[in-house]
Amino acid sequence: MTQLETMGALAKDAARKLRTASEEDKTKALEKIALALTTHEQEILDANRKDLDAAKGLLSPSMTDRLTLTKERISDMAKAVTAVSKWRDPVGEILEARDLENGLHIEKTAVPLGVIGIIFEARPNVTSDCAALCIKAGNACILRGGKEAFHSNQAITRIMRQALSESALDVNCVQLVEDTSRQSAAEMMTLTEYLDVLIPRGGAGLIRSVVDNAKVPVIETGAGNCHIYVDKSANPSMALDIIFNAKTSRPSVCNAAEKVLVHREIAESFLPAMAKKLSSKNVEIHGDQISCSLLPGTARPAEDSEWASEYLDYILGVKVVDSLEEAIAHIERYSTHHSECIVTDDPEAAKQFLASVDSAAVYHNASTRFTDGGEMGLGAEIGISTQKLHARGPMGVGQLISYKYVISGNGQIR
Amino acid sequence: MTQLETMGALAKDAARKLRTASEEDKTKALEKIALALTTHEQEILDANRKDLDAAKGLLSPSMTDRLTLTKERISDMAKAVTAVSKWRDPVGEILEARDLENGLHIEKTAVPLGVIGIIFEARPNVTSDCAALCIKAGNACILRGGKEAFHSNQAITRIMRQALSESALDVNCVQLVEDTSRQSAAEMMTLTEYLDVLIPRGGAGLIRSVVDNAKVPVIETGAGNCHIYVDKSANPSMALDIIFNAKTSRPSVCNAAEKVLVHREIAESFLPAMAKKLSSKNVEIHGDQISCSLLPGTARPAEDSEWASEYLDYILGVKVVDSLEEAIAHIERYSTHHSECIVTDDPEAAKQFLASVDSAAVYHNASTRFTDGGEMGLGAEIGISTQKLHARGPMGVGQLISYKYVISGNGQIR
Repeated sequence: MTQLETMGALAKDAARKLRTASEEDKTKALEKIALALTTHEQEILDANRKDLDAAKGLLSPSMTDRLTLTKERISDMAKAVTAVSKWRDPVGEILEARDLENGLHIEKTAVPLGVIGIIFEARPNVTSDCAALCIKAGNACILRGGKEAFHSNQAITRIMRQALSESALDVNCVQLVEDTSRQSAAEMMTLTEYLDVLIPRGGAGLIRSVVDNAKVPVIETGAGNCHIYVDKSANPSMALDIIFNAKTSRPSVCNAAEKVLVHREIAESFLPAMAKKLSSKNVEIHGDQISCSLLPGTARPAEDSEWASEYLDYILGVKVVDSLEEAIAHIERYSTHHSECIVTDDPEAAKQFLASVDSAAVYHNASTRFTDGGEMGLGAEIGISTQKLHARGPMGVGQLISYKYVISGNGQIR
Repeated sequence: MTQLETMGALAKDAARKLRTASEEDKTKALEKIALALTTHEQEILDANRKDLDAAKGLLSPSMTDRLTLTKERISDMAKAVTAVSKWRDPVGEILEARDLENGLHIEKTAVPLGVIGIIFEARPNVTSDCAALCIKAGNACILRGGKEAFHSNQAITRIMRQALSESALDVNCVQLVEDTSRQSAAEMMTLTEYLDVLIPRGGAGLIRSVVDNAKVPVIETGAGNCHIYVDKSANPSMALDIIFNAKTSRPSVCNAAEKVLVHREIAESFLPAMAKKLSSKNVEIHGDQISCSLLPGTARPAEDSEWASEYLDYILGVKVVDSLEEAIAHIERYSTHHSECIVTDDPEAAKQFLASVDSAAVYHNASTRFTDGGEMGLGAEIGISTQKLHARGPMGVGQLISYKYVISGNGQIR
């Protein structure tokens, strides 16, 4: 057995026990983890210091920021674990029940997925977030973080496992892959005997690699080339506020707006007002031909490849469309099917857009930034699914489950 | 573009239109398909004759039987399409709704998956079954059947497409891959741009190959190494009836019992009675050491590899266990997680078994043969999922869907 297979077998055994653990035992274990993270704050900071020292000069400022832990961030990690511990336990819920004519009673019952593998990059807080979500939904997890955060992840996992060892749960509910080479990620992708699902958390490159290479079932997360369509019947001031918020409140996240489509009838008045508002945040506008002609000296031409990609920056792609139908067709072609919005006062246009656009979240008159487990009332999330199988949109505790049919009879045969 | 990519683009376009098709239009199109299958019965029989002539001497009797169509079987195919047409349309159903404090209204709404690829083997009826299920749930499908059934599949698809062309739906809701080489199957597995999900229907080899090689999300179906555990508190006559039914009523299907585990306390009396009952159907018993010693001259020793595999034949693996826990552990280790049963009059033992065994369907005092969409009240099925992602157990119309969040506001920003 390879080291990962051994970890897989331990995780499977832990998952077997966790499957029938009581809600109280899971909650108490998570409370212990939250407390331990706070108590061992200095240990985590020391480990993080090692990672930061090793990264000096090698990582971009934004990567360094993601890697950096502070007392406040560790406190937030502990709070996140506590919040998850209070979330409703989905396991055992009877999703449907029916009695058949032959007397069989069938209950479709929520059960844990089993063992969840998570491959992530440089944010050490992902370690405790994911572990807490998995445990709450009755799943064991095998975490494989990026090499930049190795010491931090190791310390966080050691502390969580110490807390687990003092709880009623198996310590192997949480394991960290200490080999951060490409080989370990590749091996995880083929660990079909032990992993029930693999979730990649990180940039587009990581996600593509996992989707392309995994034999284990994958939930694809993340990429958000989100569109806002400003209809001819839009309230212009509402449209400006929504675009400003969706583009500039946090440009690096997946629910930020990347593209604005404007109906031709209002483009001449709307686009200069939009450009003016966005200029306060120095947003660059990359436009199609008409947008550029309506924004001389402000917009520059967008490359063809830009329509399909995320900027994750203070850049906005802008295109003028002739109709609602053209907007829908453009989104169908270029969207990553994360979040899209129509701004309009015309209920029929809204209805058509919401029905036709095939994305995880479709909005009428609201910012795409609301596609978030916390904001949507789904609790903390392990990622935002952009695929259609299993779960779509924010995946919280309630989405980290499967179901089984429990069938009771008194001797029925067929 | 390759031919499959062209088909993918046509399917995607058809799926886009089908997404917002009315229930009435889908129902009418399916009724037309059902009628056309009956009307063009002779055309299908002629095509099937070509396949049967080509297969002469090359296929086993059971494969030839699967390939063979008769008037009655074509009538059953039409009836199956009609039954699907009457099934409740799942699309548009609001699965959850909530109002947030900020005034946003969120509806989690059922939507089609999109384009479904299906790779199957020699049964031509799969062509119309799968097409009907996909259309009812608002999905376009690309079908790729085995080469043995090529002419039959081609005729059935031509007739279905002719019916679609006279309906309100796009004719490309159903397409057949005419290249039945391994290459076409391999290309389908990588068609991520066009396929939302891939479902293999067939033997263990096909399913393994798809699971191992597909980059498109797969739903694994089929293999059923199903166990019946006869507890020390079982009603022996009920246990005999259930085992006899689950083993012999149709041994070639995935919900047939393959293994029986018997508690040591009752093994001495139970096993000879079981062997006697099964002998009326000439069932071979492959036992562990104790079973063989209790059934001298009847049971022969099972090979180690048999515990993990399906016989799909009149053979039963039998093992004596010391406890309920040992039975559960054996199932955990060797089961394909399809269907397992406990026969017992002890409610506590039943409860522990049903909670601990992690299979798509777990039974107390009933035959495993009920794991079937029709039997369970879920309607016709496209397959029985043995994975935990997305859908588990029988997948009917109601499982061929995804969801999206539809969010309405009046200018909310974050």
